[in-house]
Amino acid sequence: MALVVQKYGGTSVGTVEKIKSVARRVAKTKDAGNDVVVVISAMAGETDRLISLAKEITEMPDEREMDMLLSSGERVSSALLAITLKAMDYPARSFTGRQAGFITDGVHTKARIKKIEAQQVRDALARGEIAVVAGFQGVDELSHDVTTLGRGGSDTTAVALAAALQADVCEIYTDVEGVYTADPRIVPHARKLDRVCFEEMMEMASAGAKVLQVRSVEMGMKYGIPIHVRSTFTDKEGTMVVPFSEEMEAVLVSGVTHDKNQAKITVMGVPDRPGIAKALFTPIADAAINVDMIIQNVSQDGLTDISFTVARTDLPKAIEVMKEVVPTLGAKGFTTNADIAKVSIVGVGMRSHPGVAAKMFETLANEGINILMISTSEIKVSCVIEDKYTELAVRALHDAFIGERGSSGKGEEG
Amino acid sequence: MALVVQKYGGTSVGTVEKIKSVARRVAKTKDAGNDVVVVISAMAGETDRLISLAKEITEMPDEREMDMLLSSGERVSSALLAITLKAMDYPARSFTGRQAGFITDGVHTKARIKKIEAQQVRDALARGEIAVVAGFQGVDELSHDVTTLGRGGSDTTAVALAAALQADVCEIYTDVEGVYTADPRIVPHARKLDRVCFEEMMEMASAGAKVLQVRSVEMGMKYGIPIHVRSTFTDKEGTMVVPFSEEMEAVLVSGVTHDKNQAKITVMGVPDRPGIAKALFTPIADAAINVDMIIQNVSQDGLTDISFTVARTDLPKAIEVMKEVVPTLGAKGFTTNADIAKVSIVGVGMRSHPGVAAKMFETLANEGINILMISTSEIKVSCVIEDKYTELAVRALHDAFIGERGSSGKGEEG
Repeated sequence: MALVVQKYGGTSVGTVEKIKSVARRVAKTKDAGNDVVVVISAMAGETDRLISLAKEITEMPDEREMDMLLSSGERVSSALLAITLKAMDYPARSFTGRQAGFITDGVHTKARIKKIEAQQVRDALARGEIAVVAGFQGVDELSHDVTTLGRGGSDTTAVALAAALQADVCEIYTDVEGVYTADPRIVPHARKLDRVCFEEMMEMASAGAKVLQVRSVEMGMKYGIPIHVRSTFTDKEGTMVVPFSEEMEAVLVSGVTHDKNQAKITVMGVPDRPGIAKALFTPIADAAINVDMIIQNVSQDGLTDISFTVARTDLPKAIEVMKEVVPTLGAKGFTTNADIAKVSIVGVGMRSHPGVAAKMFETLANEGINILMISTSEIKVSCVIEDKYTELAVRALHDAFIGERGSSGKGEEG
Repeated sequence: MALVVQKYGGTSVGTVEKIKSVARRVAKTKDAGNDVVVVISAMAGETDRLISLAKEITEMPDEREMDMLLSSGERVSSALLAITLKAMDYPARSFTGRQAGFITDGVHTKARIKKIEAQQVRDALARGEIAVVAGFQGVDELSHDVTTLGRGGSDTTAVALAAALQADVCEIYTDVEGVYTADPRIVPHARKLDRVCFEEMMEMASAGAKVLQVRSVEMGMKYGIPIHVRSTFTDKEGTMVVPFSEEMEAVLVSGVTHDKNQAKITVMGVPDRPGIAKALFTPIADAAINVDMIIQNVSQDGLTDISFTVARTDLPKAIEVMKEVVPTLGAKGFTTNADIAKVSIVGVGMRSHPGVAAKMFETLANEGINILMISTSEIKVSCVIEDKYTELAVRALHDAFIGERGSSGKGEEG
């Protein structure tokens, strides 16, 4: 008998019919003799509906109250799934984040889990019940206010709970069949990966693969919880996210990812003196805006330009900060560009194979795509390009590194 | 400086625009130098939307889970009102039932308040904040599960909280201007009452006047909290619900009420022996179904028929119980009738004036309306009739006891 944590996303529980289908899958897992914990997202569209209600009131709604507001979505879907399971005569019980023991810090809308006191869930399992846990939420350890873990936070709820309960596997059910070598909507012959290692998955997630939240992968890696990404709508095996093993080493590039949620800010004519980066980026960090890439031009006449990227959704907040900060720097001004995208190639094989970045730049150049910014890690190369070229770039990179029509990417390094 | 508890119903917060208008009214009360606690219902339609989702899954959704589900509605509206107040620069904070300290028994969907530990609300007031409390909900003192207080439970939340905080007044804001001598949609010349005593209000509420939940009136009476029922949409004074005073004594009938949420169950051929009523009604009570009227026919050949009424919304649950119980009684079977309604007349003056019931029966008979069941209290007479006659009965009784076109009902006893 295994302990299985299953997480179902918003599209998997978007209607009553879909909730019933999820319930049948949960019941099947239970019938197979497993203990089952289900983590569930809000019904598709519900979170957006609540956000737009708040935005009708004010552009910048209070964040404590946003958490109170948004946490209701998972409460609804968890209760509906528990109702369905009980109507099918399976003992089940829904849990809010608080009841499931999720204690977080006090950073509203982006809280981090401090600890999980999951005794109530353990008790439910000991009674033979299926535990249905509202994802995405917890309570502040100090104020006991409701907090949320940020968009996609239910993945993190699931993996963290799997770690706390020492589950055998964490299954992430979604509307795609697993992790692909590229987005199949852009590259029709993209292949589903049977296995991917945690590090690759983390780079792919942070480079725009939407299938898993970065923090959930980080947590799976930290606690050694195998994550099985699979489809709610078929019984096919999906993609196993597992620790790195030798047999994977040959793969140079596992996937090509893209992220259109990107915007660039350029500060012009900044005096090139020590402390200027700190003066620029500290207020950005204080506003909880994540900066991705940074480039600084060669200084001329003691002045330089600094460009950096942020999530496009954070751009309005970033512009507010820049209006305050830029005048204090003695800079000439700033410009913004929201028409950019990031394309990335990810693979553990890059560690031992130089020349991958060069081949990526060549591939993009051959298509006439200008590279605006570059960043690299041990197992990833990312380029910022004009967003109108995104699909073209992804297809070209997939062909170059992974192969056309399903051929394997092995040995294709340039 | 007074402490004012204000309760806003679902129609008062049905849209973002209406929430903004509620926020302005709350702000005005705060600006006048009062401490303000706001109790809020779910946005109009939201509770019904959630119920219908659950009913799509199963006719008899699990009640623990229904409470988890429905409590989300008030969480949303309380967060939205707090967001609005903060956007207007008023310090405000939303509270769930648990955060506001509502500890209840474990009877899901109809929980009763055991105690209120309102320290967090007191702390917020001490900091000068407006406390926005999600109505209708609490937590089970033993399991810490979410509970709800039943439909209209936000009234009870408001009055109970007013009692716990020793508030000066509890204002119930609604979509009508106060308590009327009859439903103005049925009797256009019904009068708004400036004052009504707790006992009358309680009988009127239990007889179908929807303006206040019975338990909230009971609680106001017990703790001596004056309740001001008034409209969200005007500044006019509404109806004050206050302790009985001498000057009210002359009013024979204060109001005519009706209730279509009625259903009748008849058990046929029940052996007429001691203990049979207990055997029948104990399981009904155990299922938390409230029985209103009971009549038993004269016994023939040792067999009798027993009829009783329940809320129409409880009928499916009652039928389940009857299927279990009726065979064990040795009865022949049971029938149900959901096409009935209850009309009532209420007034403290009845205490000292006999003949009121007789005049009521005569009035209904004159309209050709058959009386199916009767119940009386010191200050109320109720008749069950076919529900198609409801409006006719209400108009006839209002004309007979309260007067046509706004004339006073004083001295009209038959």
